[in-house]
Amino acid sequence: MAPRIDIINGPNLNLLGEREPEIYGRETLGDIEKACTALATRLGLGLHFFQSNHEGALVDAIQAARGQAAGIVINPAAYTHSSVAIPDALAAFEGPVIELHLSNVHRREAFRHHSHVSARADAVIMGCGAQGYELALMRMARLLGRG
Amino acid sequence: MAPRIDIINGPNLNLLGEREPEIYGRETLGDIEKACTALATRLGLGLHFFQSNHEGALVDAIQAARGQAAGIVINPAAYTHSSVAIPDALAAFEGPVIELHLSNVHRREAFRHHSHVSARADAVIMGCGAQGYELALMRMARLLGRG
Amino acid sequence: MAPRIDIINGPNLNLLGEREPEIYGRETLGDIEKACTALATRLGLGLHFFQSNHEGALVDAIQAARGQAAGIVINPAAYTHSSVAIPDALAAFEGPVIELHLSNVHRREAFRHHSHVSARADAVIMGCGAQGYELALMRMARLLGRG
Amino acid sequence: MAPRIDIINGPNLNLLGEREPEIYGRETLGDIEKACTALATRLGLGLHFFQSNHEGALVDAIQAARGQAAGIVINPAAYTHSSVAIPDALAAFEGPVIELHLSNVHRREAFRHHSHVSARADAVIMGCGAQGYELALMRMARLLGRG
Amino acid sequence: MAPRIDIINGPNLNLLGEREPEIYGRETLGDIEKACTALATRLGLGLHFFQSNHEGALVDAIQAARGQAAGIVINPAAYTHSSVAIPDALAAFEGPVIELHLSNVHRREAFRHHSHVSARADAVIMGCGAQGYELALMRMARLLGRG
Amino acid sequence: MAPRIDIINGPNLNLLGEREPEIYGRETLGDIEKACTALATRLGLGLHFFQSNHEGALVDAIQAARGQAAGIVINPAAYTHSSVAIPDALAAFEGPVIELHLSNVHRREAFRHHSHVSARADAVIMGCGAQGYELALMRMARLLGRG
Amino acid sequence: MAPRIDIINGPNLNLLGEREPEIYGRETLGDIEKACTALATRLGLGLHFFQSNHEGALVDAIQAARGQAAGIVINPAAYTHSSVAIPDALAAFEGPVIELHLSNVHRREAFRHHSHVSARADAVIMGCGAQGYELALMRMARLLGRG
Amino acid sequence: MAPRIDIINGPNLNLLGEREPEIYGRETLGDIEKACTALATRLGLGLHFFQSNHEGALVDAIQAARGQAAGIVINPAAYTHSSVAIPDALAAFEGPVIELHLSNVHRREAFRHHSHVSARADAVIMGCGAQGYELALMRMARLLGRG
Amino acid sequence: MAPRIDIINGPNLNLLGEREPEIYGRETLGDIEKACTALATRLGLGLHFFQSNHEGALVDAIQAARGQAAGIVINPAAYTHSSVAIPDALAAFEGPVIELHLSNVHRREAFRHHSHVSARADAVIMGCGAQGYELALMRMARLLGRG
Amino acid sequence: MAPRIDIINGPNLNLLGEREPEIYGRETLGDIEKACTALATRLGLGLHFFQSNHEGALVDAIQAARGQAAGIVINPAAYTHSSVAIPDALAAFEGPVIELHLSNVHRREAFRHHSHVSARADAVIMGCGAQGYELALMRMARLLGRG
Amino acid sequence: MAPRIDIINGPNLNLLGEREPEIYGRETLGDIEKACTALATRLGLGLHFFQSNHEGALVDAIQAARGQAAGIVINPAAYTHSSVAIPDALAAFEGPVIELHLSNVHRREAFRHHSHVSARADAVIMGCGAQGYELALMRMARLLGRG
Amino acid sequence: MAPRIDIINGPNLNLLGEREPEIYGRETLGDIEKACTALATRLGLGLHFFQSNHEGALVDAIQAARGQAAGIVINPAAYTHSSVAIPDALAAFEGPVIELHLSNVHRREAFRHHSHVSARADAVIMGCGAQGYELALMRMARLLGRG
Repeated sequence: MAPRIDIINGPNLNLLGEREPEIYGRETLGDIEKACTALATRLGLGLHFFQSNHEGALVDAIQAARGQAAGIVINPAAYTHSSVAIPDALAAFEGPVIELHLSNVHRREAFRHHSHVSARADAVIMGCGAQGYELALMRMARLLGRG
Repeated sequence: MAPRIDIINGPNLNLLGEREPEIYGRETLGDIEKACTALATRLGLGLHFFQSNHEGALVDAIQAARGQAAGIVINPAAYTHSSVAIPDALAAFEGPVIELHLSNVHRREAFRHHSHVSARADAVIMGCGAQGYELALMRMARLLGRG
Repeated sequence: MAPRIDIINGPNLNLLGEREPEIYGRETLGDIEKACTALATRLGLGLHFFQSNHEGALVDAIQAARGQAAGIVINPAAYTHSSVAIPDALAAFEGPVIELHLSNVHRREAFRHHSHVSARADAVIMGCGAQGYELALMRMARLLGRG
Repeated sequence: MAPRIDIINGPNLNLLGEREPEIYGRETLGDIEKACTALATRLGLGLHFFQSNHEGALVDAIQAARGQAAGIVINPAAYTHSSVAIPDALAAFEGPVIELHLSNVHRREAFRHHSHVSARADAVIMGCGAQGYELALMRMARLLGRG
Repeated sequence: MAPRIDIINGPNLNLLGEREPEIYGRETLGDIEKACTALATRLGLGLHFFQSNHEGALVDAIQAARGQAAGIVINPAAYTHSSVAIPDALAAFEGPVIELHLSNVHRREAFRHHSHVSARADAVIMGCGAQGYELALMRMARLLGRG
Repeated sequence: MAPRIDIINGPNLNLLGEREPEIYGRETLGDIEKACTALATRLGLGLHFFQSNHEGALVDAIQAARGQAAGIVINPAAYTHSSVAIPDALAAFEGPVIELHLSNVHRREAFRHHSHVSARADAVIMGCGAQGYELALMRMARLLGRG
Repeated sequence: MAPRIDIINGPNLNLLGEREPEIYGRETLGDIEKACTALATRLGLGLHFFQSNHEGALVDAIQAARGQAAGIVINPAAYTHSSVAIPDALAAFEGPVIELHLSNVHRREAFRHHSHVSARADAVIMGCGAQGYELALMRMARLLGRG
Repeated sequence: MAPRIDIINGPNLNLLGEREPEIYGRETLGDIEKACTALATRLGLGLHFFQSNHEGALVDAIQAARGQAAGIVINPAAYTHSSVAIPDALAAFEGPVIELHLSNVHRREAFRHHSHVSARADAVIMGCGAQGYELALMRMARLLGRG
Repeated sequence: MAPRIDIINGPNLNLLGEREPEIYGRETLGDIEKACTALATRLGLGLHFFQSNHEGALVDAIQAARGQAAGIVINPAAYTHSSVAIPDALAAFEGPVIELHLSNVHRREAFRHHSHVSARADAVIMGCGAQGYELALMRMARLLGRG
Repeated sequence: MAPRIDIINGPNLNLLGEREPEIYGRETLGDIEKACTALATRLGLGLHFFQSNHEGALVDAIQAARGQAAGIVINPAAYTHSSVAIPDALAAFEGPVIELHLSNVHRREAFRHHSHVSARADAVIMGCGAQGYELALMRMARLLGRG
Repeated sequence: MAPRIDIINGPNLNLLGEREPEIYGRETLGDIEKACTALATRLGLGLHFFQSNHEGALVDAIQAARGQAAGIVINPAAYTHSSVAIPDALAAFEGPVIELHLSNVHRREAFRHHSHVSARADAVIMGCGAQGYELALMRMARLLGRG
Repeated sequence: MAPRIDIINGPNLNLLGEREPEIYGRETLGDIEKACTALATRLGLGLHFFQSNHEGALVDAIQAARGQAAGIVINPAAYTHSSVAIPDALAAFEGPVIELHLSNVHRREAFRHHSHVSARADAVIMGCGAQGYELALMRMARLLGRG
């Protein structure tokens, strides 16, 4: 069976594509999910895509990946900077973890430069827009001996 | 149709009036809602009143205001100091935002002096007790050309 | 006799209306005084309006309010961030004190986020423009049993 | 009737016993609940045991203890370091509060050394593993005149 | 032979019971020693109780416990915050170490929140008053397979 | 001719005795001046006593002491913590300078613990109330070979 | 008519030449004014020279330059480090501003390394002694198309 | 002609593969160059590969890319944390810039968490090992309309 | 009986007079004791004079003053900056405490500007040399109704 | 022979005039050298002009000035903020040193506000654009008795 | 007579050789004393060797070296980081002082990187193990004209 | 063959002996090299001596020592405080590393107290002047079983 990758998205990412499309593009989270599914199939990977505005729901989702998923790609959005529960949950996951940000957080406010998640991630990819999800999947495939 | 103002209240504000009434007064959040509704009617405004102890539910509520409400008055309570998701959601709201605190936070512990919400708010009103909600509505009315 | 409210304004506020009217509006401090006087009369309050660029003169004015005024509304402007003498003088005033800023200081430079005055004020209102003065008077009226 | 003690557990504690048993032991949260119930009975105390990954649900649980429980033992886990809502809810609880950590947080990362909860707790017990829960119950019994 | 536990007390603890009895209670350090001895006997433990106002004497006492005691319970009092020699001596002790404080130091001045000892201790118990000594003995008994 | 000592007092000290007499006592600045004059006469010293709420006026007064006074006793009050101009003026004065505070500033808010004046003073006396002025004069007398 | 340059000098600069002439030279502020006037004439510029020990008076002077002067050269002396009112007044001035210090402040105490004025100035010249005023005038002349 | 991408490598990266191969792998910088060249050809991109231990030589190389290269991928290694000249040179480059690190720097010493380069980069990729170079080229190709 | 004042001196003060007499003067601690005894007699006070290089011995001395002395004058010397045990002992003393330093510590290294003792002292006198002891005794006399 | 002034320029200054000419002007470093040479001749000074992107080369150049040049004007550009070797080399130079920046660094990022060079410079001139070099030469001429 | 060198050792160094011999070696403090004595004799130096766990005893020992010893080699161990009394005592010693640490403190916890003693020492030697004592004696011999 | 020790010297050390000989002595780097060569021969060690003002050249030299030298003695001079590339290169060297400073850096400016090199060095010797090189060689000899 194809190893499953869980892509977990944090708060306000459900607004992608609706909000300021001239800046963030017209691509919605649904569009990203479609592109990822297509790429995952090509790479021989299964895909599980999730979004929530609730920190606790994200912790639940990470826990649910234990024993089920081969890797986690997480865009923690605002919880990047305020959550300890999410990195703690990731620490209990056995497979590789990639932290992802659509924009380069170092070009934004100073408080966004710090991430508790980074210390728990194997890799960090930021500023590559929606393509970042595809790059993360390619990295996962290589780590799983499929890229 | 009357423009709608959403008043969003954060954690533990549901205890208002029950807890230490000799300090915080006997006025409950329900009483405040009633006073606000009366004033809103007088000012030609609609009103939507909400409280939750869950950060994610507050984010959901702010997102739900997009395209529906003309302004948001938010008392983020404890999430003032720990949440990035709430100001990020507010940043995606098109109308004016007023941050409100019942007490003057500068007379409390040092960690309460910092608010991520303030940078996303148009105005901040604190230390006016329950009357602060009324003052915020008056400001909204003026901004909407009704005060 | 109507209880008197003293409205005390700090440095550079005398330039209001002249400087960058497309940003700060064409309303001068004189216009604000007029609007406040009208509102005060309606609320059954007396009004004393003062402005100075001199920290010492502001301290003198606060001391002069002792035993004469029922409340002080103060917009300390630049002295918000550098003066200890002004909050010390306010601490010797017996009635309620409201700190007021035309703009939301949290959207400006970091050094403007700190105010020694706030710890001595009962309430803080910022980002409501000239209307902030009116909201402060309404709060004073309520505190004095007249609103 | 036996006074009730509420034991409230934060995020990821539901994984206890499953994760790295050679380190954390094979004891699950269920095992701890059983041991606590037995001890509580011996001490003449009632017991209410709760776990959630959601900050808001923990706040709800603390509020629900008001007027019902005689004391709260809380292991806030990751929310120890990021939550203000939880200590605020604890501040509204009338009885004694004991903060509990399985490990000695001072041997872990620096950001785990700070707890907003501690300022709201009567006692703190850390590094005693699962036995810590029993010690906390004994302290509660003594405070309630039953130990 | 019963394994020996050394209970080591730092500066000013000899004043316990004499000073502000309405706050700290009338229980003296001698009373605590008696209660501990009784409990130790019940738990099958030997007990060595020591107090000094001298940092060097406390270091000497910790060194003297090497090879003699099975565990150390230490209430370093004021040296908690200023001594490096005491935690260095504890680091040379082979058995478990429990740090104890009568009060919850997080409710006191900020400089009392930091302890060099904590990083050298296996467990920390604070805010349980004189009962804290008993809880520490129970933990020791469990660690030594006697609780 | 008797060497002259200038005693210079900063903002809000003119309220001494009027404000909260149960705390600060009923002694006014006038009373202190009288006591100082009497003592100065006894010590063979001239006295010049000054108070202002204006930082600039205090700088002027210090400059005026150059070449006229043998020493300066200064209670900079709130300007202790915010003024650089006052210590710069003191640096241009040739004689000894004693900084004086009625209360012990280390028992007040943290921002009052720092004084730019202290680095420019020869001695600092605080917490001796009105008697502090007399102690400062005695020190001056000794420095001038008259005590 | 010749465009006017206002040279504004802060506290204690009136002592120049009198104080420690072996260090600061025997040149007084009057001498500097004379040299500047001569140079200004040569450069086709008018000159207005001002000094005060009062922060408020310096703010007044800057405000008075609005609409009258083509540029401001300011040596804020001690107010460089403590005043926000002065840079705020400069921000309301339409022409170029040059900040000037006689000495190199980076060779003095650390608190002198920070200047709120610098963020409001177009240029900063320090450590060139009295000649700094001439260099500033030359820069002004060039900016006004006259150098 | 194929748009050229410059891959610029900082100090000590020439040791790759030689040093601790069991940790960093046996892949040398030459191997990475070969893999990149192959991928670049497939993506229709030219490639220029450079390494130096000299900060100035890296600045020279970035300047040389101006007008010649369509994008820069830079692994600044140790200069990430100490160089301002490198990000300043990158700021003068017209095309996109991707910052790359073989390891996740957030799992290393704290001083490695800060990068002056990040504020000048469009994207940051770290912790993907040698594959990171390939991911960066894919991002470049997409940005240039070729991926 | 004459109320007793304890004068307690910290480490290295026993070297006074021997070390660098051109700076610290030729006056030894013995000379100071003699001058103090004479003054105390004149003021109707008893005197107990003590010096030790041992922090613990100073704590013992402060404890011994409880119930015996009417006030403590303490020059904690180096322990001013490193001891918590000394201020904790002073906190258990019922009478007034005056902290004394021969030199003005604010003219020395930055780490000497902080004193844990100050928060426990009623008054602080520094920079008055040996005369400081006399001034402290006069303050004690006044507090005891004898000056 | 005319005393020689060395003008030493740091990294990326060789791009002057090429890069964003609408902002930095079309003036190249060559143009500045020409203007300086002309002015130097008029002032009776020799001139040596140098630029490098290499910190070590700048150190070499400063060392080469020893015994040859009468003064150094240095624009350290990015090395202002990161180099200790350059100010150390300047400290070994016998003549006056002027630090120069084209722009006012205080209007740029915070990390540009600190300069290790300033503590080693006699004067600092910033924000005067290319004219700053001329002002620096005039200051040098005056210092050498030629202006 | 041979000039005497005092070697003074701080807390817990008496445990050397007993504790974790596989790490610290089997060499005891007695062995080091023997090696030092042999070397001292060869270098024509007398030797005085001392160890204490008491800060005050170390201060006493340093004071006792005044006028008797030609130099002090001190390994302050834990008091390196917490004592001010020891460096103050060293400051009163006339001869050269060498600070010594067996290990390289910069490879240990951050709080061990700071030493109040260093500012009072002429030289610092760390990380040379027991041989460090010999190197320090050689340095002493050279300083005394005997090496 | 004799094991080779590389002695690597950083910027401005080539000026040794020329600059301020009354302070640093008349000994040049060449003299030190000669003394070290003589001692190395006596100790059965080879010697390679190097100096550069270029950070990159120092990195090159450290890399060149890999596989060739048995140990490195490095005086990084100014790069001690600003370079990460040098300690990173040292981390790739297999043998022991000794960091050396001629003066005691803790008696100089605060920014010189921090060294990134120290965490990568086995030992640190400072304040022993030119003799420090000899002490470092002796330590190397002992580590290599030759001292």
